[in-house]
Amino acid sequence: MVTKNQIKLVVGLKQKKYRIEHGLFVAEGEKMVGELLDAGLLPQFIFVDGGPRGRDLGEVEEVGEGIFRQISSLKRPNGVLGVFHMPPAKEVVGADWTLALDAVRDPGNLGTIIRLCDWFGIQQLVCSMDTVDCYNPKVLQATMGSIARVGIRYVDLAAYLKDVELPIYGAFMDGENIHGTPLPGEGILLMGNEAHGISKELQAWIGERISIPQYGRPTAESLNVATATAILLNEIRR
Amino acid sequence: MVTKNQIKLVVGLKQKKYRIEHGLFVAEGEKMVGELLDAGLLPQFIFVDGGPRGRDLGEVEEVGEGIFRQISSLKRPNGVLGVFHMPPAKEVVGADWTLALDAVRDPGNLGTIIRLCDWFGIQQLVCSMDTVDCYNPKVLQATMGSIARVGIRYVDLAAYLKDVELPIYGAFMDGENIHGTPLPGEGILLMGNEAHGISKELQAWIGERISIPQYGRPTAESLNVATATAILLNEIRR
Repeated sequence: MVTKNQIKLVVGLKQKKYRIEHGLFVAEGEKMVGELLDAGLLPQFIFVDGGPRGRDLGEVEEVGEGIFRQISSLKRPNGVLGVFHMPPAKEVVGADWTLALDAVRDPGNLGTIIRLCDWFGIQQLVCSMDTVDCYNPKVLQATMGSIARVGIRYVDLAAYLKDVELPIYGAFMDGENIHGTPLPGEGILLMGNEAHGISKELQAWIGERISIPQYGRPTAESLNVATATAILLNEIRR
Repeated sequence: MVTKNQIKLVVGLKQKKYRIEHGLFVAEGEKMVGELLDAGLLPQFIFVDGGPRGRDLGEVEEVGEGIFRQISSLKRPNGVLGVFHMPPAKEVVGADWTLALDAVRDPGNLGTIIRLCDWFGIQQLVCSMDTVDCYNPKVLQATMGSIARVGIRYVDLAAYLKDVELPIYGAFMDGENIHGTPLPGEGILLMGNEAHGISKELQAWIGERISIPQYGRPTAESLNVATATAILLNEIRR
């Protein structure tokens, strides 16, 4: 039986403050919920409708369509909704690259970047406190389940960069051409905000300013932060 | 004075059929309209509200807020709306790469890809007839004005690829590693649909199947078509 408190919890978890307070977040869709279970994340409870299931989701509670409409963040609820415990930040073994984000605000961009980390085997993503919350439903949807496989931390980025002993590469419009820049086996790649780039406060800690060269007429806008991250992670792994 | 026919036209142009019939499309925002004017596109008319303007937009008609709310595709109309003539397909001078898209359906993806073409100086974008319309308002917004600088054609892609004399490279999950594939100075790069990749019908014309190697655990989803295009265009220009 669904309780009123469960409904209240799911609705409350649409707010970041509530998610942090409870250490819980909501994931929707059979695929997403399945991927989180496969990655070892612990569900608090999972609601399903009466429809056919493609896979076993463990212990579930069947709820009516009306309740789905009431609690879902989706325009068309898709019949699976799980409340999960946020995983603890993973310990990363061995030296590698870490991606750091300064105030990335668009949920679609963060979701795409998490998916890119998963693709390129980047196990650590470090976000400034004002980066959009990775458990925001729009971010989760854009990750396509990758969130379960990438360790994400929100930190005071200035303090983090100050203390870290790896070389720090920052993406700028006017940095060194990435095609001619030799990259080490480990380091920090720092990407900035969609509109303002990397904040002044952080620039002091950057050892190398890098750029993706432009080949079109110089009237073009800068690259979107997610596509720039795609190109730079590919360059790192090359 | 705004006429009823102008209002009817702008509202009608939300439909692709109507856009093609009239050879017109709608662009919103001072920046976008300005970029289209700078690129030499011809406006049919431009509506503005009474607010301050950062630049000269030539001949404009001032209309009230109520009319903006009635005709805008945006949740928050931003006070500039222009109806433009679709530009004729540009003739491309000299040998270079052309990007071809097979049934890319998401407006945000197409918009990002147009912006990437602009960045990487790809002057020709050839789309299958079932690719989302580049004058769709959501596509236009994602292009950030790049649409004015990239030549876009919608064609029968099978017939086009059959006739073209350049080498054709198709992006697949299981192709040759792009990091080890030498790329010529000219060619066609073919990218497929978000869910189904490149259609069977087109595969016969592909000379080289290429892939972006994956470094994470092999559970990851494929890359999004826009981020994959970003990486491959960067590889071509490298």
